[in-house]
Amino acid sequence: MSPVSVAANVAVYIEVQTFYAQQMRLLDSLDVEGYAQTFTEDGVTDHAHRGEKVEGRAALIAGASAALPRYKGVAVRHWNDHYLVEEVDENTLNVSYASLVTRTTAEGVVSFEPTFSIEDVLVRIDGKLYTKSRTIHRDLPVQAA
Amino acid sequence: MSPVSVAANVAVYIEVQTFYAQQMRLLDSLDVEGYAQTFTEDGVTDHAHRGEKVEGRAALIAGASAALPRYKGVAVRHWNDHYLVEEVDENTLNVSYASLVTRTTAEGVVSFEPTFSIEDVLVRIDGKLYTKSRTIHRDLPVQAA
Amino acid sequence: MSPVSVAANVAVYIEVQTFYAQQMRLLDSLDVEGYAQTFTEDGVTDHAHRGEKVEGRAALIAGASAALPRYKGVAVRHWNDHYLVEEVDENTLNVSYASLVTRTTAEGVVSFEPTFSIEDVLVRIDGKLYTKSRTIHRDLPVQAA
Repeated sequence: MSPVSVAANVAVYIEVQTFYAQQMRLLDSLDVEGYAQTFTEDGVTDHAHRGEKVEGRAALIAGASAALPRYKGVAVRHWNDHYLVEEVDENTLNVSYASLVTRTTAEGVVSFEPTFSIEDVLVRIDGKLYTKSRTIHRDLPVQAA
Repeated sequence: MSPVSVAANVAVYIEVQTFYAQQMRLLDSLDVEGYAQTFTEDGVTDHAHRGEKVEGRAALIAGASAALPRYKGVAVRHWNDHYLVEEVDENTLNVSYASLVTRTTAEGVVSFEPTFSIEDVLVRIDGKLYTKSRTIHRDLPVQAA
Repeated sequence: MSPVSVAANVAVYIEVQTFYAQQMRLLDSLDVEGYAQTFTEDGVTDHAHRGEKVEGRAALIAGASAALPRYKGVAVRHWNDHYLVEEVDENTLNVSYASLVTRTTAEGVVSFEPTFSIEDVLVRIDGKLYTKSRTIHRDLPVQAA
């Protein structure tokens, strides 16, 4: 690869890291509106493990708002790792990663949700990344998967 | 952006990752002196959640040394995620991230401290990064924050 | 550094991240054969904490296969952090990092193995990275280490 294309590739990787750093801050602060704005207008979230598909920002906001009571009294944090970034075309990226989710009480007691693997399609519109689709798989024992 | 400025931006991101990889090794090996050397001489650590501010390397060393008994019999590890790096000027960076802290006993039993979010100001002196200030916020339930 | 050498350095860092993202997927999916293929033919894994050294792909496959029953009924995930990447020569890298390992049951209950620090030597052959050696240290309390 030429220096320019190497620079372009690594720049995309860092752009993706920064996108998730911002999106996860919104998600973990339970800022449902702000989180929905990181999706495209027609963005889809597919909870594959429970066969539940949410399509479009309005449905995403409604669904996330309805789930808020689940986080009453806990601080939630997503810890992601092992990002793979594949450029489909100049403005479309397939990104996959694993996610560990903590719930911390006001007293500081930490508990865990099941671990997950996620497959996202990101699109760049006017120079900014958005999630076009998110597919969430709950980790299951390999023998049972 | 030109290829050169893209390369510069991503280089800073990797420089920051490497800085924390080194600083966290020193912190988690309880090397109080070595950890203090990663701060500027006047570096400040602000435990915002308990209203405790430590100013300067000498105070940092004294405070960290006094806290060492807390880690007797456990291996501590900080697991950071979601770095956001903002260049204030050529040699000043605002960096924020989340931190999960494990304590592992000699028998291998893992427990957790509350989760945190951290805001650092890093400065580059003679080509090397140092923490000029660190503000630590304990994660609290959104409703209680 | 010139823009070209900066680009080269950051490209190696991202190459390393991507290598581990792929290798950890193979490891955590218990794909013993696929995982072994990410090592050189003579690749060594040294479990320093239990004085156990596995040399060569065939021995790695045999050892990993024998350990599979340990993961029956759980989804395992490695969460790595604090990578330090040192270029020994053009095609040899020293990489060290910390690793947190989760075990998640079919019901979604998460438990933890002891934390570890790992030292790898990676080599690039025909443009692709492989693990030439892996040394695994179980984290011990500093006083007991």
